[in-house]
Amino acid sequence: MAVIATVRDEAGDPRVAITPATAAQLVKAGHEVLVAKGAGVGAGFDDAAYTEVGASVVTPTDALSKAQVLVSVGRPAASALSKLSAGTVLIAQLDSWGDTAALDKAAARGAHLIALEKVPRQISRAQSMDTLTSQASIAGYRAGIIAAHTYGRYFPMMVTAAGTAKPATVLVLGAGVAGLQAIATARRLGARVTGYDVRPAAREEVTSMGAAFLETSVNAVGEGGYARELTKEEAATQQRELSEAIATFDVVISTAKVPGRTPPLLVTKETVAAMRRGSVIVDLAASDKGGNVAGSVDGETVVTKNGVVIIGAGAIAADMAPAASDAYARNVLAVVNAIVVDGEVVVDAADDVIGAMLIGTKEDVA
Amino acid sequence: MAVIATVRDEAGDPRVAITPATAAQLVKAGHEVLVAKGAGVGAGFDDAAYTEVGASVVTPTDALSKAQVLVSVGRPAASALSKLSAGTVLIAQLDSWGDTAALDKAAARGAHLIALEKVPRQISRAQSMDTLTSQASIAGYRAGIIAAHTYGRYFPMMVTAAGTAKPATVLVLGAGVAGLQAIATARRLGARVTGYDVRPAAREEVTSMGAAFLETSVNAVGEGGYARELTKEEAATQQRELSEAIATFDVVISTAKVPGRTPPLLVTKETVAAMRRGSVIVDLAASDKGGNVAGSVDGETVVTKNGVVIIGAGAIAADMAPAASDAYARNVLAVVNAIVVDGEVVVDAADDVIGAMLIGTKEDVA
Repeated sequence: MAVIATVRDEAGDPRVAITPATAAQLVKAGHEVLVAKGAGVGAGFDDAAYTEVGASVVTPTDALSKAQVLVSVGRPAASALSKLSAGTVLIAQLDSWGDTAALDKAAARGAHLIALEKVPRQISRAQSMDTLTSQASIAGYRAGIIAAHTYGRYFPMMVTAAGTAKPATVLVLGAGVAGLQAIATARRLGARVTGYDVRPAAREEVTSMGAAFLETSVNAVGEGGYARELTKEEAATQQRELSEAIATFDVVISTAKVPGRTPPLLVTKETVAAMRRGSVIVDLAASDKGGNVAGSVDGETVVTKNGVVIIGAGAIAADMAPAASDAYARNVLAVVNAIVVDGEVVVDAADDVIGAMLIGTKEDVA
Repeated sequence: MAVIATVRDEAGDPRVAITPATAAQLVKAGHEVLVAKGAGVGAGFDDAAYTEVGASVVTPTDALSKAQVLVSVGRPAASALSKLSAGTVLIAQLDSWGDTAALDKAAARGAHLIALEKVPRQISRAQSMDTLTSQASIAGYRAGIIAAHTYGRYFPMMVTAAGTAKPATVLVLGAGVAGLQAIATARRLGARVTGYDVRPAAREEVTSMGAAFLETSVNAVGEGGYARELTKEEAATQQRELSEAIATFDVVISTAKVPGRTPPLLVTKETVAAMRRGSVIVDLAASDKGGNVAGSVDGETVVTKNGVVIIGAGAIAADMAPAASDAYARNVLAVVNAIVVDGEVVVDAADDVIGAMLIGTKEDVA
C-alpha cells in the first residue's frame, strides 16, 4: 500500500488532482490518502468531503514529506521538487517542454517524474490517463458556453410574434478534441456552425456532427489523405480566402494549440478589423507565446475599436474546476492504478505507457 | 408623416427603442427619425448605422423637443416628461404600477402616454407589440446561458475514456414565457430539466418540451382545470415537498415575476441551506421588492456559506442588449404603425389595444 498525497496548486490553479470520489477509491484499495488543507476548495470540495471518505487532511508540509506518490495539476514549485526523495513518484502536468532544470535535478536524485502531457495517446490503454483530452474537452465545451454568454444575440433561431431572429453563425477553427466539443456545444444551442482544420481528414468528423466544413478553392489533399505541402501561391490564396470567410461570422472559436509550440496565427489583425461590431472571438490557444488571434491576451477580454470582443481563453478548463478536477483526478487514478502492483509502487520504465511519460534521467529510474 | 425620436435611457439601460432596422422602415414609410447621439451604442449600433438608413443623429434636447412620437425603453426622467407638449405621444415601458405623479401631469397636459407593460396580451393583434413577452423570452434564454456559464460542471452527459459525467439537473420554477425559454435552453444544452408551475395547465406545456413536471402529493386541480384553493394543511404539505425537491437540483431558475407586484418567495433560506455546494440559482424575479429566492440581490451574485451561488437577475434582458433591442424596437414599430393613419398620428382611446395601454386622464385624450 502507498501513501498518496496532493497539495493545492501553487500557481493558483483551482483544480485538484484528487477528488473525494477518487480518494474513496484509493482508500478502498488500501492506500493512505493525504490531502493538504484546502486543496479541493477551489474545485468545490471542502476538507470534510475528503475526511468523510477516509482521506486525511494534513498540512502541505506533511503532504509533501510523507508522500510516496505525489499527484498535482501543474508542476510543483522548485522548492517542493527539491524535497522529492529517491523513489518518490510525482504525477502531474509537468510542463516538460518548458525549463526542465528543477525536474532534471529531482530525477537525478531518483524521483520518478511522470509527465501527463507526454501521454502516448495512440495507445488505447493510455486513453483513461489522458489529461490533455479530458481538459481539452472541458475547454471546448466551455468555449461554446462563453461565446453564447458574451454574444449579444441568440444562438438559436427564434420565431416570435414580432419577427424572426436569425441563428448565430459560429466558426470553429481546428477540429481536435476542443474544436469538436466547441462545435457540439454551439450546435446544441442551435447556432449555424462551420468547422475548419488543415487536416483533410477532419472534414468528415466536422460534417458528421452536423456542421459545415469551410472550403477554400485550394485542394490540399495529398497522398494517403494527408495534407500536401502547398505552393507559396496556393498558401497565399488559401490564407486570403480563409480570412475573408472568417470575417463574416458572428462568433469564431479558435482551438489550434500544440503543447510546447507557438500557436499558429489564424485570425489576423486585418481580419479582426473586418469583422462586425458585436462579433465574438474565443481564442483557446491564447498564451504568453501568442495565440491564434491577433490581439488576444490570455485570461483577458479585449474589445477592439470596431467593437469585436476577443477573449483570451488559454486556460479555461480551470474555469470549470469541479468538472475539470473530476476528469483530471480520474486520469490520475488510472496512472496510480497502473504503477501499483500487488500493493507496491513499481515504476516500470520499460512499460510502453508509463515509460513514455517518464522524464529526466531514465536510466537511473528502472 | 410624423417626427419619431428616441433618446438614450437615462437610468443606464443599454437597450434602445429604435434600431437601424426599424429606423429604415420608419424612414421608408415617410417619417422623420431622430436618434439622440449615442443612443444605440449600448446595444451595438453606432450613430453611423442610423444615418446610413436615413435617420438623423441629433442632441437629446432636439430629440425631445422635436418629437411628435417619443419612444424609449424605460420611463423618461421627470424633467423630460415635463417637456412633453399636448398631442405628443410617448411609447415606453412606463412603470405605470409605480409612482405615477409625473406621468399623470404629462397626461393632464394632453400628452398621450402609451404604457407598453399594459399591452392586452389576450388580443392577438397586440402580440406583435408585446414587449413583456419579447423581453421575457430573452431573459429566459439568458437565464439558461448564465446558469450553464456559472455551474462548474457540464450540462450535457459526457461519456469519455476516463468515465461518464452525469447531466446537470435543472429545475425551472414558473412556466410562463421566461420559464419555457429557460427550459428550452437548458434542454438544448443537454441538462435533465424539470419544470414547475402552480397553474395545472402548465404541466402540458412543460412536458411537451421534453421536461419533467415536478409533482407533489397535493392535487391542486380544481374546477375547469384551474388551481383550486388549498387548505392550510395542504398548502403546508405542498410547500414542504417543494422545498425538499428544490434542494436536490444542481441548478434552479426561478421566473415567478408579476409586473407591479411583490414576487412570491419560492426558495426559502432553509432550502438554500440544504442545497449542495456548487449549486446555482438564477432568480429572474429579483427586484428591490425581493425575489423568488431568499437572499437574492438584483444585479448581484451572492455565494452563500454553504457554497450555493445565487444570481439576482431581475433585469437580464438588458445583458443581451442587441437582441433585446431588436425585439423591443420591432414591438415599438408595431405600436407606431397602429397609431399612424394615412400618415397622421391618431391616438384612438376607443381602440381596444391602444386604449388598454393609454394611461393618465383618458377622457382628455381621445
